[in-house]
Amino acid sequence: MDLKKYIRDIPDFPKKGILFRDITTLIGDKDALREVVDIFVKKYKDEKIDIVVAAEARGFIIGGAIACGLNAGFVPVRKKGKLPHKTIGAEYDLEYGTDSLHMHEDAIVEGRRVLVIDDLLATGGTAKATCELVERTKGEVVEVGFIIELAGLKGREKLKDYKIFSQIVY
Amino acid sequence: MDLKKYIRDIPDFPKKGILFRDITTLIGDKDALREVVDIFVKKYKDEKIDIVVAAEARGFIIGGAIACGLNAGFVPVRKKGKLPHKTIGAEYDLEYGTDSLHMHEDAIVEGRRVLVIDDLLATGGTAKATCELVERTKGEVVEVGFIIELAGLKGREKLKDYKIFSQIVY
Repeated sequence: MDLKKYIRDIPDFPKKGILFRDITTLIGDKDALREVVDIFVKKYKDEKIDIVVAAEARGFIIGGAIACGLNAGFVPVRKKGKLPHKTIGAEYDLEYGTDSLHMHEDAIVEGRRVLVIDDLLATGGTAKATCELVERTKGEVVEVGFIIELAGLKGREKLKDYKIFSQIVY
Repeated sequence: MDLKKYIRDIPDFPKKGILFRDITTLIGDKDALREVVDIFVKKYKDEKIDIVVAAEARGFIIGGAIACGLNAGFVPVRKKGKLPHKTIGAEYDLEYGTDSLHMHEDAIVEGRRVLVIDDLLATGGTAKATCELVERTKGEVVEVGFIIELAGLKGREKLKDYKIFSQIVY
Protein backbone atom coordinates (compact mmCIF):
# COMPACT_ATOMS: atom_id res chain seq x y z
CA MET A 1 0.00 0.00 0.00
CA ASP A 2 1.38 3.44 -0.95
CA LEU A 3 0.79 5.21 2.36
CA LYS A 4 2.05 8.56 1.04
CA LYS A 5 -1.08 8.77 -1.11
CA TYR A 6 -3.14 9.08 2.08
CA ILE A 7 -1.19 12.01 3.51
CA ARG A 8 -2.66 15.44 2.78
CA ASP A 9 -0.30 18.37 2.31
CA ILE A 10 -1.48 21.63 3.90
CA PRO A 11 0.56 24.70 2.94
CA ASP A 12 1.23 27.39 5.57
CA PHE A 13 0.08 25.44 8.66
CA PRO A 14 0.56 26.09 11.52
CA LYS A 15 2.23 29.18 10.06
CA LYS A 16 3.38 30.68 6.76
CA GLY A 17 6.13 28.73 5.01
CA ILE A 18 5.44 25.38 6.71
CA LEU A 19 4.09 22.52 4.58
CA PHE A 20 2.10 20.45 7.07
CA ARG A 21 1.81 16.70 6.47
CA ASP A 22 -1.74 15.92 7.59
CA ILE A 23 -2.25 12.33 8.75
CA THR A 24 -5.97 12.68 9.48
CA THR A 25 -6.71 11.55 5.91
CA LEU A 26 -4.56 8.46 6.50
CA ILE A 27 -6.05 7.41 9.83
CA GLY A 28 -9.55 8.21 8.58
CA ASP A 29 -9.18 5.44 6.00
CA LYS A 30 -9.78 2.04 7.59
CA ASP A 31 -7.29 0.18 5.39
CA ALA A 32 -4.51 2.76 5.74
CA LEU A 33 -4.97 2.97 9.52
CA ARG A 34 -4.85 -0.80 9.81
CA GLU A 35 -1.77 -0.98 7.57
CA VAL A 36 0.18 1.63 9.59
CA VAL A 37 -0.62 -0.10 12.88
CA ASP A 38 0.08 -3.58 11.46
CA ILE A 39 3.51 -2.53 10.19
CA PHE A 40 4.49 -1.48 13.72
CA VAL A 41 2.95 -4.54 15.34
CA LYS A 42 4.69 -6.95 12.97
CA LYS A 43 8.03 -5.19 13.40
CA TYR A 44 7.99 -5.30 17.21
CA LYS A 45 5.98 -8.43 18.01
CA ASP A 46 9.05 -10.46 19.02
CA GLU A 47 10.70 -7.62 20.95
CA LYS A 48 8.88 -8.37 24.21
CA ILE A 49 7.57 -4.79 24.48
CA ASP A 50 6.02 -4.16 27.91
CA ILE A 51 4.89 -0.57 27.40
CA VAL A 52 4.16 1.74 24.46
CA VAL A 53 4.75 5.41 25.30
CA ALA A 54 3.45 8.27 23.16
CA ALA A 55 3.15 12.03 23.56
CA GLU A 56 -0.14 13.85 23.14
CA ALA A 57 -2.18 14.23 21.13
CA ARG A 58 -1.73 12.59 17.70
CA GLY A 59 0.70 10.04 19.09
CA PHE A 60 -2.09 8.67 21.29
CA ILE A 61 -4.17 7.57 18.30
CA ILE A 62 -1.75 5.01 16.96
CA GLY A 63 0.07 4.47 20.27
CA GLY A 64 -2.97 2.95 21.94
CA ALA A 65 -3.68 0.74 18.94
CA ILE A 66 -0.08 -0.49 18.77
CA ALA A 67 -0.07 -1.21 22.51
CA CYS A 68 -3.16 -3.39 22.06
CA GLY A 69 -1.63 -5.14 19.08
CA LEU A 70 1.56 -5.91 21.00
CA ASN A 71 -0.32 -6.91 24.15
CA ALA A 72 1.50 -4.11 25.99
CA GLY A 73 0.34 -1.34 28.31
CA PHE A 74 0.14 2.29 27.22
CA VAL A 75 1.68 5.26 29.02
CA PRO A 76 0.78 8.82 27.98
CA VAL A 77 3.24 11.72 27.96
CA ARG A 78 1.47 15.04 28.27
CA LYS A 79 1.90 18.78 28.60
CA LYS A 80 2.33 20.25 32.07
CA GLY A 81 -0.73 20.12 34.32
CA LYS A 82 -2.64 17.50 32.33
CA LEU A 83 -1.70 14.37 34.29
CA PRO A 84 -3.40 14.02 37.68
CA HIS A 85 -0.72 12.25 39.74
CA LYS A 86 2.89 13.13 40.56
CA THR A 87 4.95 13.60 37.39
CA ILE A 88 8.50 13.99 36.14
CA GLY A 89 9.18 16.53 33.39
CA ALA A 90 11.66 17.02 30.55
CA GLU A 91 12.21 20.21 28.60
CA TYR A 92 12.59 20.51 24.85
CA ASP A 93 13.44 23.42 22.60
CA LEU A 94 10.88 25.39 20.64
CA GLU A 95 11.77 27.89 17.94
CA TYR A 96 11.75 30.52 20.69
CA GLY A 97 12.12 29.28 24.26
CA THR A 98 11.30 25.86 25.66
CA ASP A 99 8.31 23.74 26.60
CA SER A 100 8.09 20.60 28.73
CA LEU A 101 6.55 17.14 28.61
CA HIS A 102 5.50 15.15 31.65
CA MET A 103 4.93 11.52 32.61
CA HIS A 104 3.62 9.97 35.80
CA GLU A 105 6.67 9.15 37.92
CA ASP A 106 5.31 5.67 38.70
CA ALA A 107 4.12 4.86 35.16
CA ILE A 108 7.04 2.61 34.22
CA VAL A 109 8.67 -0.02 36.40
CA GLU A 110 12.47 -0.38 36.25
CA GLY A 111 13.65 -2.64 33.43
CA ARG A 112 10.46 -2.52 31.40
CA ARG A 113 11.00 -2.66 27.63
CA VAL A 114 9.49 0.44 26.07
CA LEU A 115 8.53 1.30 22.50
CA VAL A 116 8.23 5.07 21.94
CA ILE A 117 5.77 6.00 19.19
CA ASP A 118 4.94 9.31 17.54
CA ASP A 119 3.25 10.31 14.33
CA LEU A 120 6.01 12.61 13.07
CA LEU A 121 9.79 12.94 13.38
CA ALA A 122 10.69 16.56 12.71
CA THR A 123 13.53 18.06 14.80
CA GLY A 124 13.23 15.20 17.30
CA GLY A 125 12.77 17.41 20.34
CA THR A 126 9.59 15.87 21.71
CA ALA A 127 10.76 12.31 21.00
CA LYS A 128 14.05 12.97 22.80
CA ALA A 129 12.25 14.42 25.81
CA THR A 130 9.97 11.36 25.83
CA CYS A 131 12.96 9.00 25.78
CA GLU A 132 14.56 10.95 28.64
CA LEU A 133 11.44 10.51 30.75
CA VAL A 134 11.41 6.76 30.08
CA GLU A 135 15.07 6.45 31.04
CA ARG A 136 14.66 8.46 34.23
CA THR A 137 12.18 5.80 35.38
CA LYS A 138 14.84 3.21 34.39
CA GLY A 139 12.74 1.87 31.54
CA GLU A 140 14.63 0.66 28.47
CA VAL A 141 13.89 2.42 25.16
CA VAL A 142 13.92 -0.45 22.67
CA GLU A 143 13.21 1.73 19.62
CA VAL A 144 11.44 4.92 18.54
CA GLY A 145 8.87 4.51 15.77
CA PHE A 146 7.28 7.19 13.60
CA ILE A 147 4.73 7.19 10.80
CA ILE A 148 6.45 10.11 9.02
CA GLU A 149 10.04 11.35 9.05
CA LEU A 150 10.97 14.78 7.69
CA ALA A 151 14.56 13.86 6.90
CA GLY A 152 15.68 17.43 6.15
CA LEU A 153 15.15 18.46 9.78
CA LYS A 154 17.79 15.97 10.98
CA GLY A 155 15.78 14.54 13.89
CA ARG A 156 17.85 11.35 13.65
CA GLU A 157 20.93 13.26 14.77
CA LYS A 158 19.20 14.43 17.93
CA LEU A 159 18.06 10.84 18.55
CA LYS A 160 21.43 9.23 17.68
CA ASP A 161 21.47 7.25 20.95
CA TYR A 162 18.33 5.34 19.91
CA LYS A 163 17.20 2.97 17.19
CA ILE A 164 14.80 4.80 14.88
CA PHE A 165 12.17 3.49 12.47
CA SER A 166 9.91 5.52 10.21
CA GLN A 167 7.35 4.30 7.69
CA ILE A 168 7.22 7.31 5.33
CA VAL A 169 10.19 9.57 4.63
CA TYR A 170 10.02 13.03 3.03
CA MET B 1 -11.96 -8.73 35.23
CA ASP B 2 -12.83 -6.10 37.85
CA LEU B 3 -11.83 -2.99 35.88
CA LYS B 4 -12.62 -0.64 38.77
CA LYS B 5 -9.58 -2.04 40.58
CA TYR B 6 -7.38 -0.46 37.91
CA ILE B 7 -8.81 3.06 38.27
CA ARG B 8 -6.85 5.37 40.57
CA ASP B 9 -8.78 7.97 42.58
CA ILE B 10 -7.04 11.35 42.82
CA PRO B 11 -8.62 13.78 45.29
CA ASP B 12 -8.75 17.49 44.42
CA PHE B 13 -7.79 17.24 40.74
CA PRO B 14 -8.06 19.31 38.60
CA LYS B 15 -9.28 21.43 41.52
CA LYS B 16 -10.31 21.20 45.15
CA GLY B 17 -13.38 19.08 45.81
CA ILE B 18 -13.17 17.01 42.61
CA LEU B 19 -12.37 13.30 42.91
CA PHE B 20 -10.62 12.52 39.63
CA ARG B 21 -10.93 8.98 38.24
CA ASP B 22 -7.49 8.36 36.73
CA ILE B 23 -7.50 5.83 33.88
CA THR B 24 -3.73 5.93 33.29
CA THR B 25 -3.34 3.05 35.73
CA LEU B 26 -5.90 1.05 33.75
CA ILE B 27 -4.44 1.64 30.29
CA GLY B 28 -0.92 1.15 31.63
CA ASP B 29 -1.81 -2.45 32.46
CA LYS B 30 -1.67 -4.61 29.32
CA ASP B 31 -4.49 -6.92 30.38
CA ALA B 32 -6.84 -4.16 31.49
CA LEU B 33 -6.19 -2.11 28.34
CA ARG B 34 -6.88 -5.16 26.18
CA GLU B 35 -10.04 -5.97 28.14
CA VAL B 36 -11.47 -2.45 27.81
CA VAL B 37 -10.82 -2.35 24.06
CA ASP B 38 -12.10 -5.92 23.55
CA ILE B 39 -15.37 -5.15 25.31
CA PHE B 40 -16.03 -2.32 22.87
CA VAL B 41 -14.91 -4.33 19.85
CA LYS B 42 -17.09 -7.32 20.74
CA LYS B 43 -20.10 -5.09 21.41
CA TYR B 44 -19.92 -3.26 18.07
CA LYS B 45 -18.38 -5.80 15.70
CA ASP B 46 -21.67 -6.55 13.93
CA GLU B 47 -22.79 -2.91 13.79
CA LYS B 48 -20.97 -2.15 10.52
CA ILE B 49 -19.14 0.82 12.07
CA ASP B 50 -17.36 2.87 9.37
CA ILE B 51 -15.73 5.47 11.59
CA VAL B 52 -14.77 5.83 15.25
CA VAL B 53 -14.76 9.45 16.43
CA ALA B 54 -13.13 10.60 19.66
CA ALA B 55 -12.24 13.95 21.22
CA GLU B 56 -8.73 14.76 22.38
CA ALA B 57 -6.76 13.76 24.20
CA ARG B 58 -7.59 10.69 26.34
CA GLY B 59 -10.32 9.61 23.94
CA PHE B 60 -7.67 9.14 21.24
CA ILE B 61 -5.91 6.37 23.17
CA ILE B 62 -8.76 3.89 23.12
CA GLY B 63 -10.49 5.40 20.09
CA GLY B 64 -7.65 4.49 17.74
CA ALA B 65 -7.42 0.99 19.16
CA ILE B 66 -11.16 0.40 18.84
CA ALA B 67 -11.13 1.70 15.25
CA CYS B 68 -8.42 -0.84 14.40
CA GLY B 69 -10.32 -3.62 16.13
CA LEU B 70 -13.52 -2.80 14.23
CA ASN B 71 -11.68 -2.33 10.93
CA ALA B 72 -12.97 1.25 10.84
CA GLY B 73 -11.31 4.60 10.21
CA PHE B 74 -10.62 7.09 13.00
CA VAL B 75 -11.61 10.76 13.02
CA PRO B 76 -10.21 13.11 15.69
CA VAL B 77 -12.22 15.93 17.28
CA ARG B 78 -9.93 18.64 18.63
CA LYS B 79 -9.78 22.03 20.27
CA LYS B 80 -9.83 25.12 18.05
CA GLY B 81 -6.73 25.68 15.92
CA LYS B 82 -5.32 22.16 16.21
CA LEU B 83 -6.65 20.65 12.97
CA PRO B 84 -4.89 21.82 9.82
CA HIS B 85 -7.72 21.77 7.26
CA LYS B 86 -11.11 23.49 7.15
CA THR B 87 -13.22 22.58 10.20
CA ILE B 88 -16.70 22.83 11.61
CA GLY B 89 -17.11 23.68 15.31
CA ALA B 90 -19.60 23.03 18.11
CA GLU B 91 -19.73 24.81 21.45
CA TYR B 92 -20.20 23.21 24.84
CA ASP B 93 -20.67 24.65 28.31
CA LEU B 94 -17.94 24.91 30.90
CA GLU B 95 -18.56 25.82 34.51
CA TYR B 96 -17.99 29.43 33.50
CA GLY B 97 -18.40 30.25 29.81
CA THR B 98 -18.08 27.96 26.82
CA ASP B 99 -15.42 26.19 24.78
CA SER B 100 -15.59 24.58 21.35
CA LEU B 101 -14.61 21.36 19.62
CA HIS B 102 -13.74 21.06 15.95
CA MET B 103 -13.70 18.39 13.26
CA HIS B 104 -12.51 18.50 9.66
CA GLU B 105 -15.56 19.34 7.56
CA ASP B 106 -14.70 16.58 5.06
CA ALA B 107 -13.82 13.92 7.64
CA ILE B 108 -17.07 11.98 7.43
CA VAL B 109 -18.99 11.10 4.27
CA GLU B 110 -22.81 11.28 4.38
CA GLY B 111 -24.44 8.13 5.71
CA ARG B 112 -21.35 6.71 7.40
CA ARG B 113 -22.06 4.76 10.58
CA VAL B 114 -20.17 6.36 13.44
CA LEU B 115 -19.24 5.13 16.91
CA VAL B 116 -18.39 8.00 19.30
CA ILE B 117 -15.93 6.99 22.03
CA ASP B 118 -14.69 8.84 25.09
CA ASP B 119 -12.99 7.81 28.30
CA LEU B 120 -15.42 9.52 30.67
CA LEU B 121 -19.08 10.54 30.72
CA ALA B 122 -19.45 13.40 33.19
CA THR B 123 -21.95 16.16 32.27
CA GLY B 124 -21.97 14.96 28.65
CA GLY B 125 -21.05 18.33 27.13
CA THR B 126 -18.10 17.22 25.04
CA ALA B 127 -19.84 14.02 23.88
CA LYS B 128 -22.90 16.00 22.82
CA ALA B 129 -20.76 18.50 20.89
CA THR B 130 -18.98 15.57 19.22
CA CYS B 131 -22.31 13.99 18.18
CA GLU B 132 -23.47 17.34 16.79
CA LEU B 133 -20.35 17.57 14.63
CA VAL B 134 -20.93 14.05 13.28
CA GLU B 135 -24.55 14.82 12.45
CA ARG B 136 -23.71 18.09 10.71
CA THR B 137 -21.61 16.04 8.27
CA LYS B 138 -24.67 13.75 7.91
CA GLY B 139 -22.93 10.85 9.59
CA GLU B 140 -25.11 8.54 11.71
CA VAL B 141 -24.25 8.25 15.41
CA VAL B 142 -24.81 4.54 16.10
CA GLU B 143 -23.91 4.74 19.80
CA VAL B 144 -21.72 6.62 22.27
CA GLY B 145 -19.36 4.46 24.34
CA PHE B 146 -17.47 5.39 27.51
CA ILE B 147 -15.08 3.59 29.81
CA ILE B 148 -16.41 5.41 32.89
CA GLU B 149 -19.74 7.03 33.66
CA LEU B 150 -20.20 9.39 36.62
CA ALA B 151 -23.92 8.76 36.97
CA GLY B 152 -24.51 11.56 39.46
CA LEU B 153 -23.67 14.20 36.86
CA LYS B 154 -26.61 13.12 34.65
CA GLY B 155 -24.73 13.06 31.36
CA ARG B 156 -27.27 10.56 30.02
CA GLU B 157 -29.97 13.21 30.16
CA LYS B 158 -27.95 15.55 27.98
CA LEU B 159 -27.36 12.64 25.56
CA LYS B 160 -30.96 11.35 25.64
CA ASP B 161 -31.16 11.35 21.82
CA TYR B 162 -28.40 8.73 21.61
CA LYS B 163 -27.75 5.17 22.69
CA ILE B 164 -25.20 5.17 25.51
CA PHE B 165 -22.91 2.44 26.80
CA SER B 166 -20.48 2.65 29.69
CA GLN B 167 -18.23 -0.05 31.14
CA ILE B 168 -17.74 1.28 34.67
CA VAL B 169 -20.35 3.30 36.56
CA TYR B 170 -19.72 5.37 39.69
